Amino acid sequence: MTSAPEQGATRWKCVCAYDGTHFAGWQSQSAGSAIQDVIEARLARILGGSVRIHASGRTDAGVHARGQVFHFDAAWRHGPEKFLTALAAGLPQTIQLRTLRAVDVGFHARFSATGKLYSYRICLGDTDPFTRPYVWRFHRPLDTDRMAQAATEVLLGRHDFKAFSAFNGTERSDTVRDLRRLDVLRRGRSLRIVAEADGFLYKMVRSLVGALVAVGEGKLSIEQLRELRDSRERTAAVHTAPPEGLFLERVIY
Amino acid sequence: MTSAPEQGATRWKCVCAYDGTHFAGWQSQSAGSAIQDVIEARLARILGGSVRIHASGRTDAGVHARGQVFHFDAAWRHGPEKFLTALAAGLPQTIQLRTLRAVDVGFHARFSATGKLYSYRICLGDTDPFTRPYVWRFHRPLDTDRMAQAATEVLLGRHDFKAFSAFNGTERSDTVRDLRRLDVLRRGRSLRIVAEADGFLYKMVRSLVGALVAVGEGKLSIEQLRELRDSRERTAAVHTAPPEGLFLERVIY
Repeated sequence: MTSAPEQGATRWKCVCAYDGTHFAGWQSQSAGSAIQDVIEARLARILGGSVRIHASGRTDAGVHARGQVFHFDAAWRHGPEKFLTALAAGLPQTIQLRTLRAVDVGFHARFSATGKLYSYRICLGDTDPFTRPYVWRFHRPLDTDRMAQAATEVLLGRHDFKAFSAFNGTERSDTVRDLRRLDVLRRGRSLRIVAEADGFLYKMVRSLVGALVAVGEGKLSIEQLRELRDSRERTAAVHTAPPEGLFLERVIY
Repeated sequence: MTSAPEQGATRWKCVCAYDGTHFAGWQSQSAGSAIQDVIEARLARILGGSVRIHASGRTDAGVHARGQVFHFDAAWRHGPEKFLTALAAGLPQTIQLRTLRAVDVGFHARFSATGKLYSYRICLGDTDPFTRPYVWRFHRPLDTDRMAQAATEVLLGRHDFKAFSAFNGTERSDTVRDLRRLDVLRRGRSLRIVAEADGFLYKMVRSLVGALVAVGEGKLSIEQLRELRDSRERTAAVHTAPPEGLFLERVIY
């Protein structure tokens, strides 16, 4: 799955944060509008040759990250601090390279990951312009105790999460994941859903949030949620929550 | 100073919040890029005729507001809630109309104001991309106790603040202001300076912040700050802090 770097090159692991609001996602079809494109262009500028970066996974348009991880191979002889400073200098304010270090050639941002941690923020009611790009504004009442109960009783643990994913063309055969954490935390009008698993299916976090919100609204009972899970069928009962509330917090290795 | 609305029109008072990052300020020379232009265009669209809005004062490019106030005259017969909803619907996410209500014709957003409250945020060190547009990132150590002492001993109270303003072409004769509050609040790596006065001179908050930071860095002693104040001369010793940390919090009537 991994190929060794060319002679003289080092494998680098970078942790980055980004505001996904104005990007077409981590990776896009149209060149230039994706976060990956911007970072690769910066690397090419510094190193004088094209470099491909490999992330722990893609994030969709509008999704944010505090701890996305990517790796790449490059020859650089002036130490990681200078490398980080040089790279960071030319990036937009919306992308921040947090740490950069040389790693073993066996490291792969995607295949070495043993888990991921996401958070999703909902604001019950209106928000100011400073938090608006980072929350799902929800204007109907939610029974958050019921949502927390549904999370613990039905979704937490090792399950086939096929009903809570979107397939985007290609069917994945293995849809069993170990959801190690799914907390529903309320503080005033702010609701935070924290999800950690060994891995996530496509649009899984946003689908889990959509399903929990349906439970909170009383549109779906806890028993119906369980039946939905066991059906392994994606139905119209589960909506995908909007991207702006979602943050990739951390990739676990 | 105020003119009465035309027959059939009502005077409206609106409180709004905005993210100033991508605007040329409240009012600009080049049409379309200012916050005022965007709101006036929306009003024209809803009312079918051009409407001029009058703010409590301008904010510079990059400065934010949580509680800017403006007034305007318009005939609208469907109640303030529907008016607010109609106006808000077509505005960008970066501008939020918080409240709208009919007021007495004697009300003027600028001339009726008896005070203003600003806050300025400094982050000591790096920030993530989500707070970066709203703080001044400062990478050298600051003696914040000393800054608080300078604020209380030298700047707080009724003074001629000419040394802490920029004149922008036109000399103002009355440069005495009553600075009723100037707090320097530290919480971890985050520093918040809160300023309230009966009014502020052009770039006065950012100049006060710049002066306090010079004190915090040890570039200016408290005694030198006092001499500067009494000199009533703007010198190179006072820098204007960058706009992105500044928020117009509230206009007091």
